[in-house]
Amino acid sequence: MSANTAFSRLDTLARRLEAIEHAQAMLGVDEAVMMPSGGGEKRAETLGTLAGMYHEMATAPEVGDWLSAAESEPLDDDQSAAIREFRRSHTNMTCLSSEFVTRQVNARVRSEQLWRELRPAGDWTGFLPAFEGLVALAREEAQLRADALGLSPYDAMMDQYDPGNRAADIAPVFASLKSFLKDFIPRAIDRQAERRARRPLKPYNAPFAIEKQKALGLVMMEAIGFDFSHGRLDVSHHPFCGGVPTDVRMTTRYTESEFLSSLMGILHETGHGLYEQNLPQAWTHWPSGRARGMTIHESQSLFQEKQIGCAPEFWEWALPHVRETLGADAVAGWDLDDVLAHVLEVEPGLIRVDADECTYPLHVILRFEIESGLIDGSVRPSDVPEIWDAKMREYLGLSTITDMKNGPMQDVHWPSGAIGYFPSYTLGAMVAAQLKAAMKRDLPGLDDDVRHGRFVAINDWRREKIWSVASRYSTPDLLIRATGEKLDAKYFEAHLTQRYLG
Amino acid sequence: MSANTAFSRLDTLARRLEAIEHAQAMLGVDEAVMMPSGGGEKRAETLGTLAGMYHEMATAPEVGDWLSAAESEPLDDDQSAAIREFRRSHTNMTCLSSEFVTRQVNARVRSEQLWRELRPAGDWTGFLPAFEGLVALAREEAQLRADALGLSPYDAMMDQYDPGNRAADIAPVFASLKSFLKDFIPRAIDRQAERRARRPLKPYNAPFAIEKQKALGLVMMEAIGFDFSHGRLDVSHHPFCGGVPTDVRMTTRYTESEFLSSLMGILHETGHGLYEQNLPQAWTHWPSGRARGMTIHESQSLFQEKQIGCAPEFWEWALPHVRETLGADAVAGWDLDDVLAHVLEVEPGLIRVDADECTYPLHVILRFEIESGLIDGSVRPSDVPEIWDAKMREYLGLSTITDMKNGPMQDVHWPSGAIGYFPSYTLGAMVAAQLKAAMKRDLPGLDDDVRHGRFVAINDWRREKIWSVASRYSTPDLLIRATGEKLDAKYFEAHLTQRYLG
Repeated sequence: MSANTAFSRLDTLARRLEAIEHAQAMLGVDEAVMMPSGGGEKRAETLGTLAGMYHEMATAPEVGDWLSAAESEPLDDDQSAAIREFRRSHTNMTCLSSEFVTRQVNARVRSEQLWRELRPAGDWTGFLPAFEGLVALAREEAQLRADALGLSPYDAMMDQYDPGNRAADIAPVFASLKSFLKDFIPRAIDRQAERRARRPLKPYNAPFAIEKQKALGLVMMEAIGFDFSHGRLDVSHHPFCGGVPTDVRMTTRYTESEFLSSLMGILHETGHGLYEQNLPQAWTHWPSGRARGMTIHESQSLFQEKQIGCAPEFWEWALPHVRETLGADAVAGWDLDDVLAHVLEVEPGLIRVDADECTYPLHVILRFEIESGLIDGSVRPSDVPEIWDAKMREYLGLSTITDMKNGPMQDVHWPSGAIGYFPSYTLGAMVAAQLKAAMKRDLPGLDDDVRHGRFVAINDWRREKIWSVASRYSTPDLLIRATGEKLDAKYFEAHLTQRYLG
Repeated sequence: MSANTAFSRLDTLARRLEAIEHAQAMLGVDEAVMMPSGGGEKRAETLGTLAGMYHEMATAPEVGDWLSAAESEPLDDDQSAAIREFRRSHTNMTCLSSEFVTRQVNARVRSEQLWRELRPAGDWTGFLPAFEGLVALAREEAQLRADALGLSPYDAMMDQYDPGNRAADIAPVFASLKSFLKDFIPRAIDRQAERRARRPLKPYNAPFAIEKQKALGLVMMEAIGFDFSHGRLDVSHHPFCGGVPTDVRMTTRYTESEFLSSLMGILHETGHGLYEQNLPQAWTHWPSGRARGMTIHESQSLFQEKQIGCAPEFWEWALPHVRETLGADAVAGWDLDDVLAHVLEVEPGLIRVDADECTYPLHVILRFEIESGLIDGSVRPSDVPEIWDAKMREYLGLSTITDMKNGPMQDVHWPSGAIGYFPSYTLGAMVAAQLKAAMKRDLPGLDDDVRHGRFVAINDWRREKIWSVASRYSTPDLLIRATGEKLDAKYFEAHLTQRYLG
């Protein structure tokens, strides 16, 4: 391609933006894994300056001209997809004025700091004025995005995280799932009680040495297909999967009192890591070569953790590895059912991040219902505690009205201004179940593969259907291409029924 | 200060350049300490792109105009120093055309790769054509720098690493030192032989567990004054001190067969680290706030390693820590003289980086004499092996004529195009001795402080004289301000005489 086309100018810009993103990603990893505390202030200043440079480069006046010109140049399919996604990212970046962004960033920083300060005491009243300001800004943002994208305000907010996701499609799916779960969860809990009456939950034979837990995590990652020449596992306070596709940095954290939460966390992050490592290498500098949004990313981690990692056949293979790596004493007297009783424990609770796969969606649906109301104005910020409490009582039988800390103040998302993100978690769980069902049709030997620790065919399927197409299609289109149909809650519901009532 | 002054524009630019440098420094540390091998290609691409962006920003046409305008604005002392050093850095960056830089970078990359390939077999003949090309480019570079700076070509090359260093000042100091060492080294070796006849060198009681060696290194770093809230110690193949002043990343490497090389390496890098950690924080984004060149940096590491860390009083304090941290068996039967016999061993050898403090300067003087001849044309590249051999025989009694690998092919500097750098090592050693002598006049209790592991007064002196003034003065002026006189070899000579013949 000639160096004078608009496409080639955008290609050069994309490489420069990628270099800044590479630096941002690795500085973020370093901050969480390695950085001493005193390095934080200058690191924050550096990241702020790099973000400003990035925004200035990506939104420079000539970029819009290049995009328009490139759209009329003769392009192949990959190039067209590249320009389409670049345009999407450009629209999302330019639709907010820098005056607005500055105002919003300042409000978000203040609000998040205030939240960290007031959350321990659950001081909702103290937090409310900042929250009201933030919601007002979010509504303003949603309207600006809606105008630029031709979407409704809440759809425009979701579109940042999952291109193509629309409330009109999601609301009925969530309604079906909610109605299913309200009936299903009590039955799953009864069934669990019956099982425990016959066979009590075995306590952990703690302590579990951290070095051995790490070795076990590495064994699992390697077997599942994580490429250690392009990634590594470290420790951080909040586990994450970061870095860049050629160098994926996963973290976990360990406690000596049990080994399953770290291991399941590693399986989860490995799902994210495999996605990143298997993106198409020639397109890493274009938005079209990146992972396709939060729903699909979460579907890959939940596929690894829940669809595969909580299945009995997985533990048929994994339990001997646990014995071998942690030592024979570690799970002495445990058999398959004892491990499964731990990894599949169902227990309604107040906290989303601690929830099991059965109750988690209700935490998300509650937030989806409230935040879409906050954006369309039908819910006022001051009403949130009452609505939250009413929904928690209805969905999970728990009241939060006297416990703001573990009620509407538990998550960082709203205090930091992220509205439209929550649905991705449960959409990801449903997509994972739908992918598993489709995969099982294509790979009849799937369960047997897992039973023997063979993940090649599974990963080949995921690579073909998900990983290699990156951001070529919208989230709903990607799902239809991979599974033959649009999102349908029945796969996730069937998965839960089979696993917990089967 | 108004946002409309040229100074304030340069201040904003300096913050942006600092952000890129921060990213470059940390990506470099991560590459050496953490990065899996497969991350290397994209990391190199990223660093190349960031370097290009840096150069473009720093040499944009308006920057020269801002500098000229700022030079006529009313500035305080700090601001004047900031503009002076920014101008120096700008001149050094803009005096080479980008056509020349591209040509030279390509030649350097090819030459360094060829050197890595041919060095193991010592294939000088295969390397010579690339080396001739590189020297031709270095002469062209030196002339371009000389024209821009009003210096002689070799001085212009040295000025990049040590502003103010001039061959006319250095040559007589090196001549005096060379003449001293040719007489001194045989006497030091005789004295060592006498001591060993009375008291043989004790072998190491290996193995030394790496975890314990690391603990010992941390104990020493902390006692010496390294701030672990603004830095850390890791492992890499080639030890270095990197990162940024607020977050200094030191590395070492360990062998289980002995513990002194890692420990002395840690002391050396701690000297670099203290300098970085104690630079003035308000000026980190301006060139004037950075460390003052390679000679002064090396003086700080060699002060820590050689002037302090090899002194008997240091080991009076350190040896009990070694016993405590490595375990009583580690140095069972060793007393102070046994440790000193190891750390002060004198032995002429072929390799510069393995040389002791007595023979090291002759390796450097040899290179200074040859490389200044390469630049002024009095030495032809093809003559280097004969000249090298003649000088090695004269200075150290060793021939390299049949061993190119351990002769003129041993260092990466020339193959990578760095000419004018070598003098800094020995200038640093001499500066360290001169600083110690001046410090001793100001702090009569210095030896006693070291004997008790008290480094506060020593560090306060270094902070006042060296660290806090950063790049405010040229290298020679900094030394005069710190010690009251210009560089004089007599302090280093007296140091060696007292230590090895005393």
